[in-house]
Amino acid sequence: MRILGIDPGVATVGFGLLDAEGGALRYVTCGAIRTPAHTPLTARLGQIYSDLEELFEAFRPDVLSVEELFFKNNITTGIPVAQGRGVILLCAHRHGIPVYEYKPAQVKQSVVGYGKADKRQVIDMVRRILNMPSPPKPDDAADAVAVAICHARSATSLLARQGGDSGCSTI
Amino acid sequence: MRILGIDPGVATVGFGLLDAEGGALRYVTCGAIRTPAHTPLTARLGQIYSDLEELFEAFRPDVLSVEELFFKNNITTGIPVAQGRGVILLCAHRHGIPVYEYKPAQVKQSVVGYGKADKRQVIDMVRRILNMPSPPKPDDAADAVAVAICHARSATSLLARQGGDSGCSTI
Repeated sequence: MRILGIDPGVATVGFGLLDAEGGALRYVTCGAIRTPAHTPLTARLGQIYSDLEELFEAFRPDVLSVEELFFKNNITTGIPVAQGRGVILLCAHRHGIPVYEYKPAQVKQSVVGYGKADKRQVIDMVRRILNMPSPPKPDDAADAVAVAICHARSATSLLARQGGDSGCSTI
Repeated sequence: MRILGIDPGVATVGFGLLDAEGGALRYVTCGAIRTPAHTPLTARLGQIYSDLEELFEAFRPDVLSVEELFFKNNITTGIPVAQGRGVILLCAHRHGIPVYEYKPAQVKQSVVGYGKADKRQVIDMVRRILNMPSPPKPDDAADAVAVAICHARSATSLLARQGGDSGCSTI
């Protein structure tokens, strides 16, 4: 199963690809889609959609894994991120790729073993889990790999329990 | 100039179409795209995109007019609306339709003449401005017509001032 993890945004969309087979994880690639500042929002959303289509064509992911959005304070920043996330979900839907979403605490629990782990702990564990010589860059890409790992582990436990509740759900 | 006003959402997307020629406004149609509850978010976003494409094909709008999102309290409700709005902006972009956005107070000022007008005043003025026998239904459609009127009036004043600042901007 090839998993594409996505860290949504408008300026930067992190992505991370993994192959998960029988509990083993193999790192494929990661990176970030960047859209130019001082460009109309509509054009930035258009670029995110097209670049994501290129990723789908180049790497043929079986599923997309993404964090649930959660904004406590800075909703002004949150609106563009949510708009970008809408475009990402749409792109997956139109290409027949199922989307799974996880709460931030689920991702941290799955990667670090502790739901309140900080960002650096998550990135360091991503590197260790995938035996990478250095952590994925930029941080948005590392976050995307983390949510891909979370799906791999949830899907594995789902299979091990023969259809039991993995805590993951398609959206 | 044919203007498509949109009131974004996920469960209900209001739309309203107007023709604006030389300061005169002619009502074309209005309504709402509704997506079924208890359906995956990705499928709802997919339906919004396809239904909007059908509207574009059927009515050939020249521009799309939409309110800026503004959430003060209920950001939990706001995230899906913002995701839906992202899909709407993307759809317009991919069909080459420029998008203009207005603040809620600009829409009220333009339609009622008072930036703090309440919802019922806006809907009643929409009916009067367009000489409609009854207010547009549902309210989401009326809101969409209001933002279309706002663009018509902003664009007219822009032309009258020969390129002066109309207070509207493409996004």
